[in-house]
Amino acid sequence: MTLRIAEIFGPTIQGEGVLIGEPTVFIRAGGCDYRCLWCDSPHAVDSAFRHEWRVMTPAAIWAEVRRLSGGRPLTVSISGGNPAIQDFAPVIALGKAEGYRFACETQGSVARPWFADLDTLVLSPKPPSSGQDVDWRSFDACLASTEGGPQTVMKIVIFDDTDFAWARSVSEHYPRLPLFLQPGNPEVDPEVPVDLRAAASRLEWLIDKVTGAGWFRPRVLPQLHVLVWGNKRGV
Amino acid sequence: MTLRIAEIFGPTIQGEGVLIGEPTVFIRAGGCDYRCLWCDSPHAVDSAFRHEWRVMTPAAIWAEVRRLSGGRPLTVSISGGNPAIQDFAPVIALGKAEGYRFACETQGSVARPWFADLDTLVLSPKPPSSGQDVDWRSFDACLASTEGGPQTVMKIVIFDDTDFAWARSVSEHYPRLPLFLQPGNPEVDPEVPVDLRAAASRLEWLIDKVTGAGWFRPRVLPQLHVLVWGNKRGV
Repeated sequence: MTLRIAEIFGPTIQGEGVLIGEPTVFIRAGGCDYRCLWCDSPHAVDSAFRHEWRVMTPAAIWAEVRRLSGGRPLTVSISGGNPAIQDFAPVIALGKAEGYRFACETQGSVARPWFADLDTLVLSPKPPSSGQDVDWRSFDACLASTEGGPQTVMKIVIFDDTDFAWARSVSEHYPRLPLFLQPGNPEVDPEVPVDLRAAASRLEWLIDKVTGAGWFRPRVLPQLHVLVWGNKRGV
Repeated sequence: MTLRIAEIFGPTIQGEGVLIGEPTVFIRAGGCDYRCLWCDSPHAVDSAFRHEWRVMTPAAIWAEVRRLSGGRPLTVSISGGNPAIQDFAPVIALGKAEGYRFACETQGSVARPWFADLDTLVLSPKPPSSGQDVDWRSFDACLASTEGGPQTVMKIVIFDDTDFAWARSVSEHYPRLPLFLQPGNPEVDPEVPVDLRAAASRLEWLIDKVTGAGWFRPRVLPQLHVLVWGNKRGV
């Protein structure tokens, strides 16, 4: 079997969410069942970039992660695109045999048995600003697939007041899922330097929304990699 | 009984360490047994600021936290200065009775029985650049006081290569303590805007140190509040 891989890079740190700051090698899968209007990784989503993706066996993927990490176990994050449209079970099995830990980030539109093999599952349902419709039955199937397995958390990107209200409603439906909010990033051109002041202002806006509402459940975090490297790829 | 309090503020988010992003009200205690060369909170340390501190009963402290948070339980972080030179047990008891959670940040120079009542204890031994000597016997006493109690983690500020080497050595002595590193912030004048690019570069430097060394144990995080608000107080 083979998998479509947009990029494998690291070690760097995880820039967002529950594992923020954690040294990580990223496996970014190619292909996605969504087309979010503000997608920050079109090179891993849009078929127009398909010629840049590599078709790799699990053994070849694992060899590259091992090489990048010098054979020292760390956290491997499987992201995308939506990694759940492919079968990463063999890659996870190879890594776990060597003591590596695995996280996966997915919107929750496709449930996979291998979610149970992860250490961390981040479910990121897409808010209204994405232009996507969430299929909550699939989302619930993702949750069900993790029973007794990984730490499972929810992360929601917030671009505007509508997204924020939506996140509050979603949060009420999943009161037991730890919740992370992050401000949306409208600056996604890798060729244009990120305006740090504007990025900091977006974080401040979201902090004010949360604390102003007296809603103390979510943790509010930025994308550290954007603050450090802008939208440069491979870091 | 009364306590010396430099400031009580929030809700805002926790800007650093294991609870980064968590909505929090801060109780900043006045007074410290250390004089770190790069202290970012001299207004809570130096006796020259003592006239700005309030002498408050636990009930008065708790009334202010409750007012700031609108009576909605959240995480209360007790910091300083070194809060461990005072007795916060009554404050914690008042808050826990109302469902609030408590974190405390201290260098680990003074152990307190009330550490066991916390939800999170952050021990921040000060590296060589601070000009302080760590008394590891006291540090170990802090650890011992948390047995069966709070989540306990270690956070080390890194200014230079010497601090980094020191952190690696300390880490080896405490292999079971989750470890967080953060770049030191030499810009501590609340009147001078922080250079965001420089702050991002310091984070990048520390990420490169950790990943370049193939040392994948620590999580590397910035001070988010500095990125958003500079060195402004009360946020």
